[in-house]
Amino acid sequence: MPVDMEKIVSLCKRRGFVFPSSEIYGGLGSCWDYGPMGVELKRNIRDMWWKAMVQERSDVVGIESSIMMHPRVWQASGHVGGFADPLVECKSCHLRWRVEDLDKEGTMSEDGNSRRCPSCGGELTPPRMFNLMFKTFMGALEEEASVVYLRPETAQGMFVNFDNIITTSRKKLPLGIAQIGRSFRNEITPGNFIFRTREFEQMEMEFFVKPGTDEQWFDYWTKERFSWYLKLGIKEKNLRLHPHSKDELAHYAKSCDDIEYLFPIGWSELEGIANRGNYDLIQHNAASRRNLSYYDAESGERYIPYVIEPSAGVDRTLLAVLIDAYHEEVVENRERVVLRLNPSLSPVKVAVLPLSKNEKLTPMAREVYEGLCADFMTCYDDAQSIGRRYRRQDEIGTPLCVTIDFASLEDHQVTIRDRDSLAQIRLPIDRLKEALEAKLKGEAFESSSLWAAGRR
Amino acid sequence: MPVDMEKIVSLCKRRGFVFPSSEIYGGLGSCWDYGPMGVELKRNIRDMWWKAMVQERSDVVGIESSIMMHPRVWQASGHVGGFADPLVECKSCHLRWRVEDLDKEGTMSEDGNSRRCPSCGGELTPPRMFNLMFKTFMGALEEEASVVYLRPETAQGMFVNFDNIITTSRKKLPLGIAQIGRSFRNEITPGNFIFRTREFEQMEMEFFVKPGTDEQWFDYWTKERFSWYLKLGIKEKNLRLHPHSKDELAHYAKSCDDIEYLFPIGWSELEGIANRGNYDLIQHNAASRRNLSYYDAESGERYIPYVIEPSAGVDRTLLAVLIDAYHEEVVENRERVVLRLNPSLSPVKVAVLPLSKNEKLTPMAREVYEGLCADFMTCYDDAQSIGRRYRRQDEIGTPLCVTIDFASLEDHQVTIRDRDSLAQIRLPIDRLKEALEAKLKGEAFESSSLWAAGRR
Repeated sequence: MPVDMEKIVSLCKRRGFVFPSSEIYGGLGSCWDYGPMGVELKRNIRDMWWKAMVQERSDVVGIESSIMMHPRVWQASGHVGGFADPLVECKSCHLRWRVEDLDKEGTMSEDGNSRRCPSCGGELTPPRMFNLMFKTFMGALEEEASVVYLRPETAQGMFVNFDNIITTSRKKLPLGIAQIGRSFRNEITPGNFIFRTREFEQMEMEFFVKPGTDEQWFDYWTKERFSWYLKLGIKEKNLRLHPHSKDELAHYAKSCDDIEYLFPIGWSELEGIANRGNYDLIQHNAASRRNLSYYDAESGERYIPYVIEPSAGVDRTLLAVLIDAYHEEVVENRERVVLRLNPSLSPVKVAVLPLSKNEKLTPMAREVYEGLCADFMTCYDDAQSIGRRYRRQDEIGTPLCVTIDFASLEDHQVTIRDRDSLAQIRLPIDRLKEALEAKLKGEAFESSSLWAAGRR
Repeated sequence: MPVDMEKIVSLCKRRGFVFPSSEIYGGLGSCWDYGPMGVELKRNIRDMWWKAMVQERSDVVGIESSIMMHPRVWQASGHVGGFADPLVECKSCHLRWRVEDLDKEGTMSEDGNSRRCPSCGGELTPPRMFNLMFKTFMGALEEEASVVYLRPETAQGMFVNFDNIITTSRKKLPLGIAQIGRSFRNEITPGNFIFRTREFEQMEMEFFVKPGTDEQWFDYWTKERFSWYLKLGIKEKNLRLHPHSKDELAHYAKSCDDIEYLFPIGWSELEGIANRGNYDLIQHNAASRRNLSYYDAESGERYIPYVIEPSAGVDRTLLAVLIDAYHEEVVENRERVVLRLNPSLSPVKVAVLPLSKNEKLTPMAREVYEGLCADFMTCYDDAQSIGRRYRRQDEIGTPLCVTIDFASLEDHQVTIRDRDSLAQIRLPIDRLKEALEAKLKGEAFESSSLWAAGRR
């Protein structure tokens, strides 16, 4: 049975994944903070993306560009002129509405006056364009000359650094430039928890290729990115590809595929893979008067490269991963909530649980903790009953729990409990690392020789 | 001989550590982008901090809060009222100046009129307060109600989440909450490369303790943080502690120690460790009307905790690490620049270098690359002479280079070259991982049995 969003929001709050931002002041519109569990999950998602997209590829390099960029970047990219939504304002209550949203509810004439304000029924102004970029002022003077924007995408950081990277990295095309970082859009209608927020984190890569090879690379990256979500452990039945039709395409895109996930709000975009053509480099080439063409030593040609862009969101991926891993089940006549996360994504890899808070068990349990925490994110918990502590670990998706009991003091063995099968084995303390590494590799842990050796 | 800043800036540009932001548009005042090498170094610094401050401690948890927070956070924290510099403006050329900077050059009367504009000699206005927070507008209306600030520190994210974290983590005091993230200050006089910038990345931790134990924890964290920089590999002679005198303290601080590094611009702050007392929680407790006190079950007391805050900068640490590792030396009658980085910090751990670009060597070299890149950040380079490629790797601090030559095709052995000693040994391909792991652990690699076995 699919989980609804309320259950996810509740789990996130209860177990320290996601809190409303500035909650003690009533929250701030669609901004969220990641708690102790959320931040570890986020770090793991980022690391898996970086490993797949940068570390394991000799044809991609990483960067981190600043959030504040020169305003001319956004003029050249088209964001100052075109990154805007048409809004109408109510003449009575002064609330503003997206024409697109009003359109969905019924017809609306071009001057926006045939409809009334959905809130108070007042008369609406004609639509005006409203830019989605956040604007601030750099330096001591609040005047037009010092306006800077918060980036609405990380992508432009790659385009304006293309020349620097080609020059200093000595790499040849095809070459990707990848970045993870926050972006900001002053959305009129954010919502659905962390699905659409005004501050969000992107994982973007611009893959520069020779014109003519772009469609083939576009297909390659669509497949590659789709399979990445499968590797994260997301169920294939909850993923689908949505190729954009011509009238859905952004003006700069030759083609675009969305990878969609079956969220509780319906199929929605997780990642977009776009063939941006040479739009951005052509624009910056002209606006900056810097030659952004590439000399292809093999063919002797000089050209402005085409760009394939897989653009993913950290927050959306995190949400999809949580929804996909969430299970409620009845075990031993008790309900449990369990996150069946890919162990590589689990915020905590192993919990060390002394059977009770006891002066004899504590030193050994601390020793076990100290022996693991340098290599694995480890949780130490000695409060409440062992059953409740197991349940707490299930709720945050901890793959293995290690229990130290009085027999451990004698035989230096501990009990390992598997999150998914609930099976328990007893192993010598010095084989714990091995067991954890096997589980993290996603091997069929219960058919391993280690498991067989420990079975009681 | 100490290195000057120009050499570091030049290396950073030349080898892809740091580029000026939006460089093709002439740059943006004191904003910088991290290139392929810079981003890896930054990631390693962040990871080492997170490991030491969160992963290996059961008394610290992590969070990531949003950059945009509720404006009342900054009213309560004192930033709206007090986070300001007094500025004077020239009545002729309208440039603005920090009173503090003019003071340094000579005496200045309280109304600021006794001095003239350093640029044009014009008359100056009386000083006015200028807030250092960047301001923007959220939602569709640009009016006071929708003003939000970009955070000038990550710390307030921890204070406003204190209650959420105590409730959901079931941890007891002393407890730390740690965060890594970008902060923004509209500095009037930024400069010295990435030392003082308007957009920067902080690594902050708020350690909540029982009042009365605060000075003891303050001493503990000062020692702990000082030793962290030694673990990064920074030379002890270039580090010093600067305890603040009473008149240097911020209004909220009971005491503060700076860890300083001997930058080319002189001894300057790398990190501040402050005893913030209960200032922030008291302020938020009053402003939010939420009870932010803590019930201490052991002693039966209820109190507002005191806070010790070690606050470090990613960018400054990166700069110090680069300066400290930079060496020019003459080897075999040729000059080389080498970054003697702690191998854990090196952007690239190992370079795979076929002796020449050759159809017989390439497949084996690619195989060696593929075998390493899942575990280590690996570089593959087959262009130019082997000597030049070694020099390039020295300049970015790569600890080990692996060379594949024609003999490798016969005996499946490769040559490993050590960055620091320049010694070379020959080892079977299947022992490469072992050699790398030994080097990364910082063991005396050349006295290892592996090294002895491979010595020619």
